[in-house]
Amino acid sequence: MSKRTENYLEKRKILVDKALEKFMPKPSNLAGDVIRAMHYTLFAGGKRIRPVLCIAGAEAVGGSADGVLPVACALELIHSYSLIHDDLPALDNDDFRRGKPTNHKVFGEAVALLAGDGLLTLAFTLMARYGLEKRVDKEALLRVIDLIASAAGYKGMVGGQVADISYEGKDPDPSVVEYIHTHKTGALIAASVTAGTILAGGNEEEIQSISRYGQHVGLAFQIADDILNIEGNRDVIGKGIGGDKQRGKTTYPSVFGITKSKDIQNELVDRAIEALNRFDKRAEPLRDLARYIIRRRS
Amino acid sequence: MSKRTENYLEKRKILVDKALEKFMPKPSNLAGDVIRAMHYTLFAGGKRIRPVLCIAGAEAVGGSADGVLPVACALELIHSYSLIHDDLPALDNDDFRRGKPTNHKVFGEAVALLAGDGLLTLAFTLMARYGLEKRVDKEALLRVIDLIASAAGYKGMVGGQVADISYEGKDPDPSVVEYIHTHKTGALIAASVTAGTILAGGNEEEIQSISRYGQHVGLAFQIADDILNIEGNRDVIGKGIGGDKQRGKTTYPSVFGITKSKDIQNELVDRAIEALNRFDKRAEPLRDLARYIIRRRS
Repeated sequence: MSKRTENYLEKRKILVDKALEKFMPKPSNLAGDVIRAMHYTLFAGGKRIRPVLCIAGAEAVGGSADGVLPVACALELIHSYSLIHDDLPALDNDDFRRGKPTNHKVFGEAVALLAGDGLLTLAFTLMARYGLEKRVDKEALLRVIDLIASAAGYKGMVGGQVADISYEGKDPDPSVVEYIHTHKTGALIAASVTAGTILAGGNEEEIQSISRYGQHVGLAFQIADDILNIEGNRDVIGKGIGGDKQRGKTTYPSVFGITKSKDIQNELVDRAIEALNRFDKRAEPLRDLARYIIRRRS
Repeated sequence: MSKRTENYLEKRKILVDKALEKFMPKPSNLAGDVIRAMHYTLFAGGKRIRPVLCIAGAEAVGGSADGVLPVACALELIHSYSLIHDDLPALDNDDFRRGKPTNHKVFGEAVALLAGDGLLTLAFTLMARYGLEKRVDKEALLRVIDLIASAAGYKGMVGGQVADISYEGKDPDPSVVEYIHTHKTGALIAASVTAGTILAGGNEEEIQSISRYGQHVGLAFQIADDILNIEGNRDVIGKGIGGDKQRGKTTYPSVFGITKSKDIQNELVDRAIEALNRFDKRAEPLRDLARYIIRRRS
C-alpha cells in the first residue's frame, strides 16, 4: 500500500472511529449485555473500508467527510451485524475473527443474535435522525436509506448469504459464485460508495459511474477475501486459513482456480478505475482504494 | 369482541394483507429459499394488530389507511422478524407458533435467521421507498423511521429481549418485568399507533396523547399474553400453554399473581382510553381496540 493511501485510510478511519464512539450507547440499564456485545464486534479492529468508501464517494464530487459521517457509521454497524450473524453456529460457526473469539463465543448465542439485530436497527436510527437533526437533503437521504436497506436485505447481503449456504458442498458454478459474491459482499460495498456520492449532491451521471465503480470493487474485494483464505497468513488475517475449502464453499478459486481468479480481480480493478474516467483528482483516493483492496493482507 | 370492532379489524386486516402481498417479492432467483421463509411467517395467520393500530392512529386525526399502508406493512414485517428470531433455539427454542411449526423447524436455523434479517431490512426499504415514490411529508416519514427503528432496537424490542433472557429463572422483580414488557412488546405497539398519527399530520399534542395511549395498550397487550400463556386454550393460541412458567420467565403473573395482573391490565386499558379524552369519534376504533386487546383469546 502506498504511503498516500495509508495516510488517507488512517485519517478517515480515525474520523469514523470517533464518530462511532459518539453514536454508540453506553451500557447502563437492563440492556447492558447486548450493548456490550454490540461494542465488542464494532470495535474489534475493523478496517472501516465501507465508511471510508462512503467518505471517498462524497469527496470525489466535492463533498466532505462530515457531511456523510452518520451514514458512514451506519454502514459499519450493518457490516458488524453481518459478521456477528455470519459467525453464529447456525451459519458459518466460526470461533475466531480478527484474532479474537467471535461474538457468540464471548456473549453466548442469544445475546450475539440480538446484538446483530441491535446493530442493524441502530443503523437506521442513525440515518433517520441525521435527517431530522441536521440540514440534509431529505430526498437524497431517503434514497440512501433505500439503497442501503436493499443492499443489506434479500436483494443483497441476505440473498447472497442464503445462496452461499445452499451451494455449500455442491459443484462450483461460475454464475452462482458471481451471484453469491456480488450479493453477499459486493452490494453493501457498492452501496457505501454510492451513498456518499448521493448525499454529497452528485449528479445522476456521477452517481451511476460511482455505482459501477462500487460494483467492480465490491466483487474484487470478495475475490481477494477468497484468495486470502487460501494464501493468507493466519496471524495477519486473524482466523483459520483454508476454512472455505473445508466447508465446500463456492468461491472464485474453487470455480476458476487461483491464477484465473487473480486475473479476474485485476480486471475488475481496472474496470473500477475506468468507471472514474470523468472524475478529476478528487477521485484519486477511490482509485487508490481500488488497488489497495486487492493488495491488502488481511 | 363487539361486532363493530370485529368488522373494523377485519376490514383493515384485509387491506394490510393485500398490501403485504403486493410488497413481498416472489421467490424466483437464488435467494428463493429465504424469500419463501419470509413469506411463511408473514402469512402464518397474524392478526395484524400493529398495522391496524397504525391505521387507526392515522384515522383518529383524519388520515386514511391508504396514506400509511407501507408503514403499516413495515411494522408487520418487523413483528414477523422478531417472531422468527425469538423462536430460534438460541432464544426461546419454540417448535410451534399459531398452530404451525416455527420457521426454523421448516426451513432450518440458517435460513430462518436470514429470513428474519431479510424482513427487518425490507421494512426499511418499504418506508424509504414510500417517501421517494409518493407525495409524503419527508420530515414526518424520517421521524417515523427513527421512531420505529428505535422501538425495534436496543432501546426497545432488542433491549427487552435481552433483559428477558438475562432474568430467566431469577427472582421476579416488579421493575424488571415492567422494563421487559414495555420494551419487548410495548415499544413497537406504541410506535405503531404513533407512527400513524405522525404520518397523518397529527399535531404535537395529538402525537403525545396517542403515544401515551400506545404505551399503556402495549404493556396491557403483553400482560394479556402472559395471562393467556397460563389460562389460554392450546387449540386457540396455537402453541403450548405454561411455557413461560416452565422456563422461569419473568411475567406479570409470576411477579404479581393472576388477579393483580388482571387489575393492572384493566387499569392500563382505562388509562389508554383516558389518553384519548380530547379525541372525537374518529378515535372510537382505538378505544375499541384497547378493550379488545385484553379480551382476545389468542
